[in-house]
Formats: sequence, C-alpha cells, structure tokens
Amino acid sequence: MHNSPKNNVPKVGILMGSDSDFDIMKEAALVLDEFAVPYEVSVISAHRTPKELEQYASGAADRGLKVLIAGAGAAAHLPGVTAALTLLPVIGVPIYSKKLSGQDSLYSIVQMPAGIPVATVGIDNARNAALLAIQMLAIGDETLMEALGEFRKRLADAARQKNRKIQEKLNAIS
Amino acid sequence: MHNSPKNNVPKVGILMGSDSDFDIMKEAALVLDEFAVPYEVSVISAHRTPKELEQYASGAADRGLKVLIAGAGAAAHLPGVTAALTLLPVIGVPIYSKKLSGQDSLYSIVQMPAGIPVATVGIDNARNAALLAIQMLAIGDETLMEALGEFRKRLADAARQKNRKIQEKLNAIS
Amino acid sequence: MHNSPKNNVPKVGILMGSDSDFDIMKEAALVLDEFAVPYEVSVISAHRTPKELEQYASGAADRGLKVLIAGAGAAAHLPGVTAALTLLPVIGVPIYSKKLSGQDSLYSIVQMPAGIPVATVGIDNARNAALLAIQMLAIGDETLMEALGEFRKRLADAARQKNRKIQEKLNAIS
Amino acid sequence: MHNSPKNNVPKVGILMGSDSDFDIMKEAALVLDEFAVPYEVSVISAHRTPKELEQYASGAADRGLKVLIAGAGAAAHLPGVTAALTLLPVIGVPIYSKKLSGQDSLYSIVQMPAGIPVATVGIDNARNAALLAIQMLAIGDETLMEALGEFRKRLADAARQKNRKIQEKLNAIS
Amino acid sequence: MHNSPKNNVPKVGILMGSDSDFDIMKEAALVLDEFAVPYEVSVISAHRTPKELEQYASGAADRGLKVLIAGAGAAAHLPGVTAALTLLPVIGVPIYSKKLSGQDSLYSIVQMPAGIPVATVGIDNARNAALLAIQMLAIGDETLMEALGEFRKRLADAARQKNRKIQEKLNAIS
Amino acid sequence: MHNSPKNNVPKVGILMGSDSDFDIMKEAALVLDEFAVPYEVSVISAHRTPKELEQYASGAADRGLKVLIAGAGAAAHLPGVTAALTLLPVIGVPIYSKKLSGQDSLYSIVQMPAGIPVATVGIDNARNAALLAIQMLAIGDETLMEALGEFRKRLADAARQKNRKIQEKLNAIS
Amino acid sequence: MHNSPKNNVPKVGILMGSDSDFDIMKEAALVLDEFAVPYEVSVISAHRTPKELEQYASGAADRGLKVLIAGAGAAAHLPGVTAALTLLPVIGVPIYSKKLSGQDSLYSIVQMPAGIPVATVGIDNARNAALLAIQMLAIGDETLMEALGEFRKRLADAARQKNRKIQEKLNAIS
Amino acid sequence: MHNSPKNNVPKVGILMGSDSDFDIMKEAALVLDEFAVPYEVSVISAHRTPKELEQYASGAADRGLKVLIAGAGAAAHLPGVTAALTLLPVIGVPIYSKKLSGQDSLYSIVQMPAGIPVATVGIDNARNAALLAIQMLAIGDETLMEALGEFRKRLADAARQKNRKIQEKLNAIS
Repeated sequence: MHNSPKNNVPKVGILMGSDSDFDIMKEAALVLDEFAVPYEVSVISAHRTPKELEQYASGAADRGLKVLIAGAGAAAHLPGVTAALTLLPVIGVPIYSKKLSGQDSLYSIVQMPAGIPVATVGIDNARNAALLAIQMLAIGDETLMEALGEFRKRLADAARQKNRKIQEKLNAIS
Repeated sequence: MHNSPKNNVPKVGILMGSDSDFDIMKEAALVLDEFAVPYEVSVISAHRTPKELEQYASGAADRGLKVLIAGAGAAAHLPGVTAALTLLPVIGVPIYSKKLSGQDSLYSIVQMPAGIPVATVGIDNARNAALLAIQMLAIGDETLMEALGEFRKRLADAARQKNRKIQEKLNAIS
Repeated sequence: MHNSPKNNVPKVGILMGSDSDFDIMKEAALVLDEFAVPYEVSVISAHRTPKELEQYASGAADRGLKVLIAGAGAAAHLPGVTAALTLLPVIGVPIYSKKLSGQDSLYSIVQMPAGIPVATVGIDNARNAALLAIQMLAIGDETLMEALGEFRKRLADAARQKNRKIQEKLNAIS
Repeated sequence: MHNSPKNNVPKVGILMGSDSDFDIMKEAALVLDEFAVPYEVSVISAHRTPKELEQYASGAADRGLKVLIAGAGAAAHLPGVTAALTLLPVIGVPIYSKKLSGQDSLYSIVQMPAGIPVATVGIDNARNAALLAIQMLAIGDETLMEALGEFRKRLADAARQKNRKIQEKLNAIS
Repeated sequence: MHNSPKNNVPKVGILMGSDSDFDIMKEAALVLDEFAVPYEVSVISAHRTPKELEQYASGAADRGLKVLIAGAGAAAHLPGVTAALTLLPVIGVPIYSKKLSGQDSLYSIVQMPAGIPVATVGIDNARNAALLAIQMLAIGDETLMEALGEFRKRLADAARQKNRKIQEKLNAIS
Repeated sequence: MHNSPKNNVPKVGILMGSDSDFDIMKEAALVLDEFAVPYEVSVISAHRTPKELEQYASGAADRGLKVLIAGAGAAAHLPGVTAALTLLPVIGVPIYSKKLSGQDSLYSIVQMPAGIPVATVGIDNARNAALLAIQMLAIGDETLMEALGEFRKRLADAARQKNRKIQEKLNAIS
Repeated sequence: MHNSPKNNVPKVGILMGSDSDFDIMKEAALVLDEFAVPYEVSVISAHRTPKELEQYASGAADRGLKVLIAGAGAAAHLPGVTAALTLLPVIGVPIYSKKLSGQDSLYSIVQMPAGIPVATVGIDNARNAALLAIQMLAIGDETLMEALGEFRKRLADAARQKNRKIQEKLNAIS
Repeated sequence: MHNSPKNNVPKVGILMGSDSDFDIMKEAALVLDEFAVPYEVSVISAHRTPKELEQYASGAADRGLKVLIAGAGAAAHLPGVTAALTLLPVIGVPIYSKKLSGQDSLYSIVQMPAGIPVATVGIDNARNAALLAIQMLAIGDETLMEALGEFRKRLADAARQKNRKIQEKLNAIS
C-alpha cells in the first residue's frame, strides 16, 4: 500500500472520519494498488474538522482527483457532506457497528435527498468502493477497462478453483 | 405565528432542509409563540446550500441565538452538520417518510459520534423540540421556568378533562 | 422525454424489471434530458427474461453505453445480475413497496459481494441515479462537468427561493 | 459425506456462491446421505461466474437433477437467478451474516417476483432445505415417503428423550 | 375458479386461517386452474380450530393430496403447525399486515426449527406458492413440466411485450 | 358498553394514556361486557398526570381491582409504570402508529426489566388483553372458566362457518 | 430447583421446545421455588411432538395446573399452539437467537390472532414469566400476594443497596 | 472521577436504572470532570424504586440541579418517567443490549409523547449526554462556553493528529 505516489497525481481520494475505520478502508487502497491507480488517504471528520472537509472536498477536482471514496459509521454524514461540496462522484462505504447492526450507517449514507447522490456500496465493502471508482475511471480509459476485464477473469478463476477444491474434498471422503 | 419579532432578538433558530418540512416544523414555532420566546425560521439545506448553512450555524451564537432546532428527513444530515458548526445546543427533529418508516431519519440524527451531540426528539415531534429548547432557556430564566410549570399544569388539566369526557360518555351508555 | 435520440448513440442505459417501475424510473430519463445526455430505456426482467438481460448487459459496452441504471423492487436482483455481466458501472435504484418498507429492495441491491459492486442510491431516487451517471460521464467531459456546476447552482437557488417564500409567509402573518 | 455416488445419478444439486458457505451447506448433504438420496455439490457464483451458473441451471433437468438447493448470503441472488434458469423447484437457504442480522440474505431470497418462486427455508437452515427436497422427491416415491415417516419418528423420540433427561436432572436435584 | 372438481381427486390443499385471507390466497387457486391441477380450499385456524387442523393435516396424504399451501398473517402458525402434522411438503404464504410491515408473518413462517421445513414464498405471493406446488408435482409428471415450460415462455413474452410498449410510448414522445 | 356497573365492584381496570387510544381500547371493554366482568375505564397519562397514575395504580388492589389493562403507543410507558406501582398483573396493549410500524410501542411495553413483568399482547389487540384478563380471573372462578369454554366453542363455530361459506362460494363458481 | 414436589400438585407448567432452552427457562423455576409455588418442567416440541403437546395442553387444567409458561425461539409456535389447546392463561418467553436479533421469536409469540392470547414477556425474561404466573395465582391467594409484596421490597432494597455501593465507590475516588 | 464535590452544589444529576449501566454512564461523569461541572451520580430504578425516583426527580430543581442525564436499556422508561416529574431538561442515553440491537432502548427513550420531551443521544453515547448538558449550562455561562470552544479545538486537533499518523504510516510503507 502506498500513498500519493511520487510521479502520479492521485486520482482517487479515500476519506474516513476516524482512524478506527482504517482497517476497513485500507481494502480500498489495496485494490487501487492492484490496478496501479494513484490515490491518497485522509482522515477528516465531517463533525470534528468540518472546515478541513470543506477545503478538501471543494478543492478536490482542482487538485486532479476524479473520484472520492468516503467511509463512515453510525450517523455517517461524511460521504453526503463531501458530496455536497464537490461535483465529483462520491462513493460511500457504510461502516458496521454492532449497535443497530449497520442499519444506521447504511441509511445515513444511501438515503440522500434528490440532487446530491452518494454511490453507496455494501456495509464494510471498501473493496467494492475501489472497484466502482475504477469502473468510473475506466469509462474514459481503455487500459483500465482491460485491466477490469482481467480482474473479472481472475475473480471467475478463483471461484472455479474453489469449486474444484470442494469437489476434491468430497471425492476424498466418498 | 410570527418571525423575528420587532423588539426581540431571536433566541431560537428553527431550521429545515426543505419547505416540505414546514408543516411539521411550524409546530415548534407555535409552541415558542405560546411561551413568547422570540425565534426565527429558515430553510437551509445541508446538501444544496452548504455554505449558507456554514454561515448561519457558525454565526448563530454571535447573532444572539441560544438554541437551534433542525428538522430533516431520510439521510437527515442537517442537525448533525449544524451541530458541528456551532457551540450552541442543537435539537434534531427526525421527519417521517413512509420509506423505511422513519428509521432512516431517526438513526441519521441520533447516532452522532462522540464529541458533537444532537438532542434528538421523537419522529415528527417538533412540539417537543420547542419545549426542550424552552427547558434549556429556562435554566437561567425563572419566568420561563414558571411558564413551563403553568404549561405542565394545563397539560395535566387537559388529560384530566379527557378522562372526564370518557367517563361521561361511558355513563351515558350504561 | 425521448428515447435513443436520432444522431446520438445512447450513453446511459436505463433498465427496469417491470413496466410498473416506469413511474419511478422515468425521473432518471427526465434528468438525462435536462443534461442532453443520450439514453435508452428498456424493460428487461432478471427473472422472466434472463437471456435478454444476458445479451443486453454483456453487449452494452460494445454498443457504446457508458453507464447502466437499473431499478428493481423486492428481491431486486436486476442491478446485481446486470453488474455481473458487464464491466460498465451499474447504478441501482431500490423501488419502494409497502411490504417490508423498502428494506428488501435496498438490501438486495446494496449488499453485493466483493468483486461486483452496484452503486446504490436512495429508495425510489431515480433522479439521483441519473445525476450519478452524469457525474461519472463528467469525469472525462468538461462540458458536462460545467453543466453539473450550473445544475448545482440552480439547486441552491431553488433552495434559497424556498427560504425567501417562507420568510414572506411568516412576515405576512406577524 | 459423498459427492455424485458412482452408480446413482444425482437427484439433488446443492449450490453455494462461495466455499465459505460450505460449513452451513454441508448439513444439507449430510441429511441427503442419511436418506441415501444421491446429490452433487457445486460452488458457483451468480456474480463471479454467471455463465457457469447459466450452464449449470439450464442443463440441470436434462442431467437428471430433480431439485436444486442454493445457499447464499447478503444480496443473495444465487437462488433466485438459478430459479429463473430452470423449471426445477429451487430451495433457497439464506446464510447469516452479522451485518443486518441475516435480514438481507432472507429478503433477497424470499421476496421473488410473481412467476419465479424460490422455496425459502430459515436462516442457515440447510438441514431443512434437504428435508424439503426429500419431501418433494417423496411425492412420487413411496419408499422415500416411508423413510420420511421413520425420520419423523426418530425426531419425536429424540425430543422425548430430551424430556426424560430433563426430568431425571430435576429429580436428582429435588 | 373451482373447488374439488368432479372427476379429479384434489392434489393440492390450499389452507388459510381466516376468510379475510381469501383475497390473497385465491391467486393460488387461479394459477392451479390455469394448469388444470385439481385442488381444494379450506379455512382452518391453527388457533381457533386446532382439532380440525390436526384431522385435516394428518389425513391429507391418505386423501390423495400431494402438496399443501397455507397462508397466514401476524403470528402465522398455520403453515408450521400443518407441516408438523403431515409428511407432505407445505408451502407457506406470509400475509401482509401494516403492523410490523409483514415481518411478523414472514418470520413466523420461515424460521422453522430443524426437522420440520416450510417452503416459504414472498409476502402475499400466493401465485408463487401455486407455481412452486406445480414444480413439485412436475418432478414426476412430464406433461406438467411441459406446461411449466409453456408458462415460462408466456411470462417472458409478456415481459417482452411490456418492453415494446414502453419503446412505443417513448418513441411517440420524442 | 358500560362503566363501573351499579352493583358490581370493578374487577378489571382499563387504562389508556390518551383518549385517542379509545377506539382500540374499547374492544377490551366490549369483551368484558360479553363475559359480564365488571370493569372501569380511565384515561391517565404516565407523563402528563404521573401523580394520578401513582394514586390509581397503588390503590387499585385496595379498591377491589384484580387485573389492570393498559394501552399505550410510541414510548409506551403506561403499562410498565403501572406495573411498578401495583402487585396486580398488568396487561399491556401496544398501540400502532405508522411511525416505526408499531415496533416502538411493542418494544417499550414488552422489554421490561426482571422483577416487574407486563403481560404483553399483540399490537392493537385489546380483545386479547380482555380475554387474558378473563383467563386470569377464571383461575379462581369456575363459572368464568366455563364461560371461556363456551366462548372458545363459539370462536371455533365461527371459524367453521367461514369455511362453509368459502365452500359454498367456490361450489357456486365451479 | 425441584420438579413436581411430593405433596403438592403442580400449579405452573413450564414448557420448552428444546432442552437447549433450559438455561433460560430454569430461571422461571428458580423464581417459583423462591415463592414455594409447585411446578413441573417439560420439554415438548410443537413441531416434533405435536401429539404430546395436544395431550399435555388439553389435559393441563384437569391435572390441576393453573398457569402455563412456554419458552421458544425463532418461529416460536409453542406458546401459541399451547394457548389454542387450553383455557388456562399461557405466558410466552421469546428465546433470543443472534439471527434476526430475537425479533422472530418475539413476533411469533406476541402477534397472536384475536381470540387466543399469549401473555408475552421480554426476550429471554423467564424470571418475569414466573413472576407474572405468581401474580395471576395471587389474585385468589392472599398469602402469595403478601409474598409478592415482600419480593418487591427486597427488589427495591437491592436497588437501594446498589446505589449505596456506587456512592461509596465514588466517594472513595474523590 | 468524583461525586458531589465539597464546595459545589451539583448542577448535573446522572441517573441510571441499574449499576450494570455504570460502565457506560461513567463516561458522562468523566466529561463533566473535564469541564469542572459539579455533578452527582445515582442508581434509581423507575420500576424497582419508583418512589425514590419520584422524590429525586420532583425535588431536583429545588436542590439546585439544572440538567438531568438518565441512562437505561430495553424498555428504557427511566428518562421519560424522570422527565414527567421535573421541569428540568432530561437527557436520555439508550443503553445497548444485543437483544433487538439497541432498538428497544432507543425507541423507548426517544418516542416520548408531545408535552414531555427527552433529549436523546446515540446508543451508549454517555459522553455526548454530558457535552449536551454542558451546552445547555453554557447558554448562561460564558466561561463554560469558552471551555466548550477549547474542547472543540482539542477535538479537531486530535482528528488532525490521527490524519498525520495515517500519512506517516502510509509514507513509511510506500
């Protein structure tokens, strides 16, 4: 995992409200690494550092960022507030908490009012947030689209490999 | 109902994200009228007009406001974002929508992270938001505390009156 | 509203599982009209016409589509199955039903497994699905990005206008 | 536990989207073993290997399968997509995940649109999926129906035995 | 719709706990009519007439019934209690009530203990219950299996027809 | 319906927090009438008239009451607070509200801490509250127990009659 | 803990569907011991041994039982089916399972149809089930009512004692 | 942590229904310590010691208390019953329990009827309850308002510090 690589302007900004969300959100970074998409990671709280967020989000496009990914839990305002401050697409990752089983995080992110969407992925599914960001970037980037195609093949191969292992296991028993 | 009365600086600011919330939120205004507490009403969206909200909330204390009441529905960020921008106590009113039965509004408002509370009342219960604001103001205002005492007596009398009516109704039948 | 405009290859494909979803999903079309983004509308069921869906989704990129929007209710498989059959980003719109208050539609769409994301918007929020598609297209299209900026200004102006109307109304009363 | 026994064409196909579901789904296999009903087990993902699923499901009846059992979690599309691709009855097993307490898995499987049913059993209840498959097969197989009758007697005896143990335990105390 | 047709022994028994469920459950009868599968309809309450239910369910197989369909709402015990009293497969239809949004009916039916399954379909989805019963009967009845194939084709045609209508509608506008 | 009949000391006290609950709670009175069990009806609010409630509940046993029935909605404290103030059994009726689908009323009543039970019946099910009160009284009153037996027979007869009507209806069609 | 004490006919029957519920349900027995109310404990499944349940419940009153307590989880039919087979009051204890967070157990027990109530207590709250049974028996038993009064005093004393301990702890710190 | 400091009359009363809530509720005390706001801590149960609660709450204002904080779980009546007995603002802290995922505690506290508000904070969020109490007190106390401003700055600094640590960590890897 790397942050803002030397020669590349970050294209994806990964945000989280608290460093306690890092274990979940780093999965997004690892996927972007896999696709060699430059990114940056920031801890900015919609509630504790609202002005930093205002600066970050409203300046994101000018700094060359193309997509933002924001993870947050409970009254998870970070993705929505970010989306209100930029024209870039914002992907929201609801972070699970045992209280309310993740419903609070999910509803606070996905139920945005008409006008300001947040592209919401599954609870704790930061990997999918990164893949969605890559799909967005790949609209205008054939190389990336091909890399996505290769990724899907590897995904399918891994699934097939799992099937083979189950078959071997069952054959060994019977 | 009146807005920012002539000789009185508003003490309570009532916010809502959309004028469609006015039918619910005006109940707060009517209660403040009843207690002669000066207030102002504003429609400001956390998502559509974030800069107005930043100006409103961060300047609220200096303009003499003492308590803010914010109503919002769905991914109801308005109360929480307001609370992040002011030191004044912020009361949140979750607005009901049939989608998700109001759970989204409630969870988005009440589940704030440690450090930035929102005083949440029941779904659509703008009357209680106003009463809570009055209780806060009454901490340092004996006249208002007495008015609250009178209000509670009227509330109890109304409840007793309802009991008497039920008794009459039942006696009439039997 | 128009479908597959003469001189323009559609860039956005709007899908729905049943024509009963059209009243909700047409809102997406109206937004795309507003931005002059060419689109096409199709009724294809993941369950009743799975082969049509396979053909549609796996050929979408080759036909020039850049983003897909899929609306579905209840066990809302359409967005996820579509996403499994294309590399294009797929935006899912959960359609409300009074049974289970829309939770079934939302969960079936948003909780996709790692590897195949669906960009989920709020329940019945087809407008936001279209805006999200436009944000994705605008990553590589400055004119569209500027149009988005104008849209946001109109959105903010409309919110400010609502505030003025509430002020007038209140001033008229007091 | 055994897979596709030598002399018997499998009658029941057990599917799961991921090998992580095997610990739950193997319970179905163990019940089928108990009733000597031949079966096969496959790991096929509705999202990662949609074409394998299409081949598997649309060819299942021709290969002699009579009933399919599919287990899946979260946006659990596997049972419903399978049901859309075959005329055989499909039994769905919602797999529990702590996120959303299993509601997502259950709703995504049970709330199928009119026309394409999935016979849904309880969360993680793969045993009941197998028993339901056996009940379906027993409609035209008296020997199997008798075996079911014997199974029910053993079930009742085990329940009675538990009662006796509790009585002994309590008598020992008093 | 017809009940226990003259020359045919009913193969499917449709049960409901109250005649207020008839409007939902009659959809199952209409589907069975469409497939010429003989059936009978009974109103028997698990709670108000438990002995009738005991007689009905324990004698169902001997009277020639092959599958039972039971619809119930709220603490919907009818399908599960029926399943405990017969070896035949029992299909449960959760009936919607605005209280608890149908969750009570669904959970009470689907969450059966290991040993006694109920094949649960979607809330109010009596059509799917009948189709599932037909799929079960078709395991040993090629004519019925062919009829199911024809039904699926009609279902797909109807979906395609809906798509054409939407296209015409859109072309008429543009 | 009658209240505190002349020659009979009421045995059941029916409480509700607001006269808006009367339409639901009067069903309890009608059932008690049917069994000639004397009762009284009172509107007392746990929140608006807590002292009346304290007097009512703590004096209930001395005035000859044997069972209390309390209906309440939302943060439905009335049954639990009543139970804390008397040794008599208290039956709670959760009153439905569209907000939160009745979950709030149900959870606030049923989830009492160890030591102070409330016998909770279904949402809006005041009839069952009265029947439960009668079952409690019938423990020491054989005549009442016989009346309960007769009631159950009428309940079963009504269910059988519904079945006959459905049969006639279906026979008329076929 | 003791079962059916020698010289006393049991007054309370404690039922559970599985011996895995014993750890929860024994709390009811311990409370009845404390009040010297004779009871019996039985493991009877509504689904696995329906005939034993029919015999047990329909004969309960004749054997001298006055109240039944039934604990069950998931599609928790035991309390409701029992209530349908006896005129005695039946108290239901919803048993918690992590799947669906106990909602399934609670809804399946509390949402009984009009005519057949189950007195439902909180999830896993077998202590309260026993106390409720004692309150019912105390309607016609002054000694038991006095014992309940003493119990409440001990309960209050224990609460006061907890307060004193917290005060000492805090005073020690300051 | 300290209780009722020598020279200061407590301004905040912290209540909890059981000493098992102390681990959560002590967080409120620690925050009040940080702001040097005098407070007292009491364990009083709405259900087990209702008279103590009546005395405590109705005398709270006269003893100089300005704000009450009450924490409770399950059928969490303590905050609402307290609010009914005092004119002081009452802040409610819903205490989490795995049963029902905290929904019961939250709904029982927040859904108060019109007339008697409880200022509800997030589940287990006693820190925010204390901060809200301080915001209320700061309305008439400039020193406290300045302390709140300092607290917010420290909160923001801590958030910034977390961001710096993540950056260092990422730079170290890349």
